[in-house]
Amino acid sequence: MSNGALALLVHGGTENWSPARWKARFDTVCADRRVVLLPEPALDPADVHYAAVWKPKPGELAAFRNLRVIFNLGAGVDALMADRSLPDVPLVRVAVDDLTDRMTEYVVLHVLMHHRQELYLRESQRARRWAPKYQWVAGALTVGIMGLGTLGAASARALRALGFHVVGWSRSEKQIDGIACFHGAEGFDGFLRQTNILVCLLPLTPDTRHVLNRGVFAKLNRDSPLGAPVIINAGRGGLQNEADILRALDDGTLGAASLDVYEAEPLPEDSPFWSHPRVVLTPHNAADTDADEISKYVARQILRFEAGGVLENVVDRKRGY
Amino acid sequence: MSNGALALLVHGGTENWSPARWKARFDTVCADRRVVLLPEPALDPADVHYAAVWKPKPGELAAFRNLRVIFNLGAGVDALMADRSLPDVPLVRVAVDDLTDRMTEYVVLHVLMHHRQELYLRESQRARRWAPKYQWVAGALTVGIMGLGTLGAASARALRALGFHVVGWSRSEKQIDGIACFHGAEGFDGFLRQTNILVCLLPLTPDTRHVLNRGVFAKLNRDSPLGAPVIINAGRGGLQNEADILRALDDGTLGAASLDVYEAEPLPEDSPFWSHPRVVLTPHNAADTDADEISKYVARQILRFEAGGVLENVVDRKRGY
Repeated sequence: MSNGALALLVHGGTENWSPARWKARFDTVCADRRVVLLPEPALDPADVHYAAVWKPKPGELAAFRNLRVIFNLGAGVDALMADRSLPDVPLVRVAVDDLTDRMTEYVVLHVLMHHRQELYLRESQRARRWAPKYQWVAGALTVGIMGLGTLGAASARALRALGFHVVGWSRSEKQIDGIACFHGAEGFDGFLRQTNILVCLLPLTPDTRHVLNRGVFAKLNRDSPLGAPVIINAGRGGLQNEADILRALDDGTLGAASLDVYEAEPLPEDSPFWSHPRVVLTPHNAADTDADEISKYVARQILRFEAGGVLENVVDRKRGY
Repeated sequence: MSNGALALLVHGGTENWSPARWKARFDTVCADRRVVLLPEPALDPADVHYAAVWKPKPGELAAFRNLRVIFNLGAGVDALMADRSLPDVPLVRVAVDDLTDRMTEYVVLHVLMHHRQELYLRESQRARRWAPKYQWVAGALTVGIMGLGTLGAASARALRALGFHVVGWSRSEKQIDGIACFHGAEGFDGFLRQTNILVCLLPLTPDTRHVLNRGVFAKLNRDSPLGAPVIINAGRGGLQNEADILRALDDGTLGAASLDVYEAEPLPEDSPFWSHPRVVLTPHNAADTDADEISKYVARQILRFEAGGVLENVVDRKRGY
């Protein structure tokens, strides 16, 4: 076999993650390569050089002893990193413009909704109440972005272009034009003290689990026309302590929350978030990347790798993202 | 009297348009000038050289025979243009960055809301239904902007930066980088045929009254993932035929509407818009400009005018804006 087989492992996820459709896409973009949808009894695991996966079960990749690269079919690799038997080969995550653009749309939309008092305005409409309220300009608010990778940097720039004051925080030092960037544990409180709307785009790692908690909410800046600060989480559900969010909304520590991700997904029917008047929730669809774009991205990387080139967006196993 | 008096006429409008607060602002920015809030019995009308007005009653300005300039304390001059006895002196409308920025915020927010299926997502939340739907990217939609003055051009640029395809239409020919600009009666249908989300920022004149009507809605483009097109009116209520909008929403010609302005304001309590599931309404607050900015703008223009300079943003009485 001239080209190593590409094995596809697609599990869980939403209806968009249909295994058969993924195979059809890879059959197109890897036309001269054997693409196998697992489980496939006729397959010799030794023939498999590449795996493109979405939420495989722990241990499922261990059998492929000739694996060269694992491609994760999404941005977050937290599910994979929990697999202790994951073969020690480069693990590549998705970073395509399409995903970045969609996340930027989500972040800009939700920041604008809170800034422009949409919850109040919809409530007024339901009550047939013509009651314009004082509306401040974007520059009166500081949006704080946690996570300044590709996604965070793009959101920061888009918000700044609309007039918001933007600050950012990341684990390691970053520089973005026009954005005051904080970093590390020592920069965290300074970042929070300025932030009126907190946007969380961090990867989920043991260090970031439940970073959205009561202690953090209490440090956010309340000295803006918005009053009580707002949080927006489009990263991972594990980043948030949901009991803390509910308590903070109910005692006024937080004014509102936009949530796209949850500790358990789909969000259980009995979650208080569904009916909370100050929660704007979406079903983990902030950045549902175009599957064709992802397939092409994987195919491009395999070609480059086989030509001796460097893989892009390889996960640092130590950092966990 | 060395400086001509500035007479203030403030009528109607919302609570934000408080006459006493306007006088206080002008007393500050025109500190060496007599500022008179009308009606003022002790005033000789011949002393008045400038008028700063908001929705004066027709005929109210006719008595000021030494008037040099009329400043309208907002962007739209349609109410003033209906006054046939309006003194024939330069009429200046407000064009401050603050107003432009706020209108851009409103337009970007409402375009994003429809693009990102907010009506569906809020309905799903109310029904406790986890049901992610296919979400297209911004570039899959064409936003058509009617009115390419300061406001329309700024909205067009902001939407393009977010990835939307943007086309524009105006009465006279305009050029904006990256935006396909149509103009005049002959360019109107071509503009509509491309437009999935129609944003109306036209001035209200006899030519534009009820430009948002059934015939126009029927020409909009339905060939996008959005399906039925959407309209957003942040111009003037007189631009829209409200009976046509309701019929078009109910028979599927339109998918949704964001309305900030209405034929009658405040919107009557029995208007079907209030409870319509596909109407997102706001109480004419899309671009509630900072009154301090407006006062400073008027004061700057008076100083420049008295120094022999040129007035900015003078209304062309023939065009009506």
